[in-house]
Amino acid sequence: MDKTFRNEVFGQACSWIKEAGDTIRAKIDAPRSIETKSNPNDLVTEMDQETEQFFAEKIKKAYPEHFLLGEEGFGDEIEELQGTVWVVDPIDGTMNFVHQKRNFAISIGIYHDGVGEIGLIYDVMDDALYTAKRGEGAYKNDHKLPQLSKERPLEQSILALNTSWMVPENPHVDHEGMQRLVKKLRSTRSYGSAALEFAYVAEGILDGYLTMTLMPWDYAAGAILVEEVGGTVSRADKGDLDLLKQTTVLASRANIYDEISDEYVQLKK
Amino acid sequence: MDKTFRNEVFGQACSWIKEAGDTIRAKIDAPRSIETKSNPNDLVTEMDQETEQFFAEKIKKAYPEHFLLGEEGFGDEIEELQGTVWVVDPIDGTMNFVHQKRNFAISIGIYHDGVGEIGLIYDVMDDALYTAKRGEGAYKNDHKLPQLSKERPLEQSILALNTSWMVPENPHVDHEGMQRLVKKLRSTRSYGSAALEFAYVAEGILDGYLTMTLMPWDYAAGAILVEEVGGTVSRADKGDLDLLKQTTVLASRANIYDEISDEYVQLKK
Repeated sequence: MDKTFRNEVFGQACSWIKEAGDTIRAKIDAPRSIETKSNPNDLVTEMDQETEQFFAEKIKKAYPEHFLLGEEGFGDEIEELQGTVWVVDPIDGTMNFVHQKRNFAISIGIYHDGVGEIGLIYDVMDDALYTAKRGEGAYKNDHKLPQLSKERPLEQSILALNTSWMVPENPHVDHEGMQRLVKKLRSTRSYGSAALEFAYVAEGILDGYLTMTLMPWDYAAGAILVEEVGGTVSRADKGDLDLLKQTTVLASRANIYDEISDEYVQLKK
Repeated sequence: MDKTFRNEVFGQACSWIKEAGDTIRAKIDAPRSIETKSNPNDLVTEMDQETEQFFAEKIKKAYPEHFLLGEEGFGDEIEELQGTVWVVDPIDGTMNFVHQKRNFAISIGIYHDGVGEIGLIYDVMDDALYTAKRGEGAYKNDHKLPQLSKERPLEQSILALNTSWMVPENPHVDHEGMQRLVKKLRSTRSYGSAALEFAYVAEGILDGYLTMTLMPWDYAAGAILVEEVGGTVSRADKGDLDLLKQTTVLASRANIYDEISDEYVQLKK
């Protein structure tokens, strides 16, 4: 992607994400119609759909040759990652949005021929915008984020890890490995927004994030942010991420990445 | 406790907690000497100690007949809860303080002859002060918190629950009950600050908080806040809390409290 053009797209995306966030903040106390998707954990709100539609219209008008891959169905049917693709989660952390009215984010990853060029994660209620351009580092608002420590060992690390993966019946990962991992770590956290958990890893306030069921829009931006501060991101078994499928993800400081995957993660399929 | 006097104490405590928070915010980026206590999870900072000393001096000067029960050793040796006792955690969530520079709180519970009269939890970096006086409801800043729902069932609830309790070797609770609980719940969260987790239950953004190893200063304020919005707080086995001992705690909306304790919590001792 041409750098001048990338800078233009970056500026547009930052402007749109802030505008969408302003709208959400203005409306958040209004009554909402909350539908449930296939199960009660999968809440979708009008706001989700309105926000994705906002991005779909903006992108189609400004960049008619670009594609949109989104959660809510306003995007394109994409079977391969050619050209420029905006991967958008209009509200990441929908359960937090509904129950907490905070701790959710808008996430936008912009990929060109499959390579992540721009990552944006906007913590709407905190008005904190995390940004990255490939090869140019990552920022929280105007503050450049430092490269992550390569020294701190796993036993001094805090990982974002949900209790779900410690249940024997979960279909994704051997729970005994997760139990051993919890014993090894300094502590775990769980915030309920994948995008924010990536942002916190990039910011260095979490040492890693391990999870089993992310969709492309959940990590498209976060993966770029974490790599720009020297972190490592892949499937939990160290395989390459495929932006067109649900996937496991391990994102962490580089020096604890191999140990987490090799010693503690045993995927069930 | 006389109401006029209680209002005076409440005003003083609010003023002091804000002043202590201002000092912490001003100093948070200064280099800190972080010592480790008995194990690496138990970090203590100069700021912890300075903050407790600040409260000790203020309380002794204004209310020489009051007692202080605190984490850092500037308080009194207390063997029974007679008279007025300030139970203070100068920085609840020390690990967050060190690693994240946010998501920690100052917690103050004021008890008279063993009865909780005033609870204050100050989210320092968010400048959000949660307050309660017994019988007069709870507030977040100037906003009165509504009474908690008594309708929403457990399967639609979000609980603060740490991964530690799902490890078989944990000495406190049967991990299989915790695994069943996680399968029942809508979701879990873990923020790393007991005081904030109580505050979030009181605010209604978490439906409950279950944990196994709290000290009095971790829950003295939070218990008052949660009870003031109609929640239930006790040991995890429904026994009475003893402010002079480490304890398990279950704090939740009233209609899911019995079910959590009866069906899922089996303590090991």
